[in-house]
Amino acid sequence: MITNEKLEKLRTYMSQNSIDAVVIPSTDPHSSEYVHPHWKSRAWISGFTGSAGTVVVTATRAILWTDFRYYIQAAKEIKDSSFELFKMGLPDVPTVVNFLKDTLESGDVVGFDGTLISTEIYNLYKLELDQKGISINRAFDPISDIWLDRPKGASSIAYSLDIKYAGESREDKIIRVRDLMDKKNVDSYILSSLADIAWLYNIRGEDIDFTPLIISFALITKSDALLFIEDYKLPKVLKSELESSGLTIMDYKEIGNNIAKIPRGSTVYYMADTLNCYLSGLIPTDCNVKTGLDFTATLKTIKNATEISNIRLAMEKDGASLVKFFKSLEEGMATGKRYTEYSLSQIIREFRLDMDGCVDESFGPIVGYSGNGALCHYSAEEDGSLTINSNGLLLIDSGGQYFEGTTDITRTTAMGIPTKEEILHYTLVLKGHVKLALAKFPEGTTGCQLDILARQPLWEHGLNFGHGTGHGVGFFLGVHEGPQSISPRGYKEAFKEGMVTSNEPGLYIEDKHGIRIENIILTVPLEDGLEEKFYGFETLTLYPYDTKLIDRSLLTDREIDWINNYHNTVIKRVSPLLTEDEAKWLKEKACEI
Amino acid sequence: MITNEKLEKLRTYMSQNSIDAVVIPSTDPHSSEYVHPHWKSRAWISGFTGSAGTVVVTATRAILWTDFRYYIQAAKEIKDSSFELFKMGLPDVPTVVNFLKDTLESGDVVGFDGTLISTEIYNLYKLELDQKGISINRAFDPISDIWLDRPKGASSIAYSLDIKYAGESREDKIIRVRDLMDKKNVDSYILSSLADIAWLYNIRGEDIDFTPLIISFALITKSDALLFIEDYKLPKVLKSELESSGLTIMDYKEIGNNIAKIPRGSTVYYMADTLNCYLSGLIPTDCNVKTGLDFTATLKTIKNATEISNIRLAMEKDGASLVKFFKSLEEGMATGKRYTEYSLSQIIREFRLDMDGCVDESFGPIVGYSGNGALCHYSAEEDGSLTINSNGLLLIDSGGQYFEGTTDITRTTAMGIPTKEEILHYTLVLKGHVKLALAKFPEGTTGCQLDILARQPLWEHGLNFGHGTGHGVGFFLGVHEGPQSISPRGYKEAFKEGMVTSNEPGLYIEDKHGIRIENIILTVPLEDGLEEKFYGFETLTLYPYDTKLIDRSLLTDREIDWINNYHNTVIKRVSPLLTEDEAKWLKEKACEI
Repeated sequence: MITNEKLEKLRTYMSQNSIDAVVIPSTDPHSSEYVHPHWKSRAWISGFTGSAGTVVVTATRAILWTDFRYYIQAAKEIKDSSFELFKMGLPDVPTVVNFLKDTLESGDVVGFDGTLISTEIYNLYKLELDQKGISINRAFDPISDIWLDRPKGASSIAYSLDIKYAGESREDKIIRVRDLMDKKNVDSYILSSLADIAWLYNIRGEDIDFTPLIISFALITKSDALLFIEDYKLPKVLKSELESSGLTIMDYKEIGNNIAKIPRGSTVYYMADTLNCYLSGLIPTDCNVKTGLDFTATLKTIKNATEISNIRLAMEKDGASLVKFFKSLEEGMATGKRYTEYSLSQIIREFRLDMDGCVDESFGPIVGYSGNGALCHYSAEEDGSLTINSNGLLLIDSGGQYFEGTTDITRTTAMGIPTKEEILHYTLVLKGHVKLALAKFPEGTTGCQLDILARQPLWEHGLNFGHGTGHGVGFFLGVHEGPQSISPRGYKEAFKEGMVTSNEPGLYIEDKHGIRIENIILTVPLEDGLEEKFYGFETLTLYPYDTKLIDRSLLTDREIDWINNYHNTVIKRVSPLLTEDEAKWLKEKACEI
Repeated sequence: MITNEKLEKLRTYMSQNSIDAVVIPSTDPHSSEYVHPHWKSRAWISGFTGSAGTVVVTATRAILWTDFRYYIQAAKEIKDSSFELFKMGLPDVPTVVNFLKDTLESGDVVGFDGTLISTEIYNLYKLELDQKGISINRAFDPISDIWLDRPKGASSIAYSLDIKYAGESREDKIIRVRDLMDKKNVDSYILSSLADIAWLYNIRGEDIDFTPLIISFALITKSDALLFIEDYKLPKVLKSELESSGLTIMDYKEIGNNIAKIPRGSTVYYMADTLNCYLSGLIPTDCNVKTGLDFTATLKTIKNATEISNIRLAMEKDGASLVKFFKSLEEGMATGKRYTEYSLSQIIREFRLDMDGCVDESFGPIVGYSGNGALCHYSAEEDGSLTINSNGLLLIDSGGQYFEGTTDITRTTAMGIPTKEEILHYTLVLKGHVKLALAKFPEGTTGCQLDILARQPLWEHGLNFGHGTGHGVGFFLGVHEGPQSISPRGYKEAFKEGMVTSNEPGLYIEDKHGIRIENIILTVPLEDGLEEKFYGFETLTLYPYDTKLIDRSLLTDREIDWINNYHNTVIKRVSPLLTEDEAKWLKEKACEI
């Protein structure tokens, strides 16, 4: 069925149900970043396959909103349909809710599947649309009826994450969640984020691409810890293990009934931008509702000692897989082998999955050669991906899911003799990356304050990059994990000991090259200051920078020392996992500058 | 009447009016930072004279909340009364509203004078107290009845600020405000901030200490610009000037009636943390209310070309007054004259007011010698202020109100041969101050991002300072003006061309010394970057640093060049206003380092 036929079918369905506009978002009932194919209804209806976007269809118009990462791809993918592209973030482009408010009339009805819209977005829609007398039907789900060849839902089997990886029992985690509930006088806490449930109950699964999660909900009260999950997903052994940890297991579909049964007058807590509005709408109206960051988010972002030792092992393995990959690429190029961006993304996957304990990639690798490196979220397709030549820069951003942790690393490599401009740009990015790695800061410092460290060397040259400098990283969970971030918007959450974050400044010169250098860094205590505790970062990722691209004269002695020490650490820690040949190759690459 | 007698009288009055707790804040009906003595009821009831604090009195307890700046002073001033001190910001100290919620019972009534509580605070109180069934009486004003010798209200006469200072007519400013109103679909805009009214209508007065303001309200609609002011405050000539500019003049007391008459169904805008809750409570309930930053705040923070040229003149005068002051101090010390912190605060005032066009100080000078310098907001009293000796550091933070602009400068001076530690600490503070002055940053950068530039040299040594790095400064208006700030909390407002802000890192070593170095900086465009506009700062303040306190070896060449260039500029710009002797003295002080 081509896109316009789908639209026609949708509009017939809308008019049969007296719906004047339908909203189709990109997510699943858990507000997941990556979703199972079953939930890709926005992609199905519009033809746009990018990860972020929202569709609105009215009787006469069909609009796709997406952000700057996807302007080009989206335009291409919808060009044969009657979809219009609304570029989010451009000055005169209305938001979804403003578009609905401006386009619809009083008495009109906006419909959507409430399980796919977060409570926060729903509240915003309601506030704005009420003002114009537009009503909302949050139980309108046309897709289930018109998408005939829709993929079945996720169907993986859950497993227990051993304490040797998790470092803390689910019983102890539940106690800590209840402590936080007590402090906020919360009686019932509804948890819908899959990563948070996985962390809390020490379970994992394979329901979601790139992230070892299992579809489920949780509800924590002062006396009970409930897990809502489809029966077949829970092997008997795991079920009895969970039950002996004090959990009550219920069917996935029972979450709604249990929310509806929350005692009147009690206090309910949830995170409004993850809990979907269908479920929050079931909370009895005379409950006292509090919203905020998931309690589990506050806890899981601080990695415990076991997790940290495990991450160090994962980083050694990940570094070793990259040595093997880059060495094979260098040798292959020398012998005239042909590589494309796409084939490299396949090869790097193989090298990573070969490592013991690596169960998946943590995201689809970004392999951007030459001008494609400047497309921040480029994903090379088999057709039309560039062939790698002996010049220009190659940007590779990739990561793995190990039982010992989640990795995320970007390296930019010169494929031949680099130009002066490539060296200048690389060194400026590296300088910012090292400045951030070297930071010393007092308790209470946020990512908004630190962000400039990675940017200033670029700013001095009138250059900048358009993304954040760092995101939190989960432990064998999501590669993007809140709540901290290093970016101008990261002003809410202070860095705390045990947080794991990326350090990834970049520079993107259209049609020329993209540079990004990314390590994962751990917040560690430093010797105390006069009146405050001070913190710094320990770099966890282990792979050398491209010394051919470094202009020493742009770096301070302290920055040079840091790089040399880092290279020594990489050699020491990664070499034991390599063959003699590979270790020799690494030693050359990680040379002193 | 001693404090406990006042409390007794207040409690009798409360019980006669069935009030269980009364809240007495520090501000006036315009949420002013500095208030006329008439409004100092919190100081009157508690005996605590600091600028910030809130009192709550119940039948059995009397509590004073104040922040870290005043912990010591407040404790001293209330020690002979039954007041308890609640130190705001300490972990286990409840907020005012939490105290009320915890202490009172369902059915109890909290009373206060609603003209002294902002709408924002009122909304918070209401939200929290409603939950426990505690009601609010926002028309309870006991102070007017029990404070018998209360000073009369402010009674200065308004005057017009000439266009040669203001640079833009009130007609044009009103047009720009209406443009912003149109963009937000606002029909009526209520303006209660005195500085904003003074800016909008190009009027000034002397109702408030340190700030040339006149007590008034304003209301802007699509067709009318109203000024509410007591009749006697407006000379006939000014009244007719304002009327010919299209203003409608009404009595100050009429603001309430005019708010109550706002057409039903129309959209009203105000700033919730300045408009008092008595007035916002008069808005017809079926109006559409929008709140946000004052439109005028967005406009007045961008100084126009006339204002900027004027500020440059004010800075030359201010620098000259400081040369005269510091020269006389140095010579007086050499001839054995005795100075105290207090006498210096008087002398610096005289030198400043001697300058042509200087009408007032912009705040009470902070003169902190030796250990007193470490008390950030120290105000030397005649009794007990320290005598200045030939050693240690002297911190002086002072400023003036000139027709040509508002100044605010801090210099720290070694009174003898400085110690190694004094030199180290001064140089680290100076280094941060210069790093900020040298900043180059793209459009959209906020003060939260820049703040670290001024702190990092200190952080590297495990040192820090507990206040923000910079605040906005008004043009012949408040010395503290929003919305931008350079601090971890300054993440909302990006720096724009024409903003005037302070650059004032410091370091405070208890019982030893305080260091602060403060200049006023102007945001200026730099040559554009690759894809973005870039900005930097022009330093407006003109007075040399203390070269005796600078350790060159801790500075980069670029930082040293900046200081030397700055000193040359100071000599060039300030000397024409000096006698030959003074100019010679300045040339020595502003020597190359």
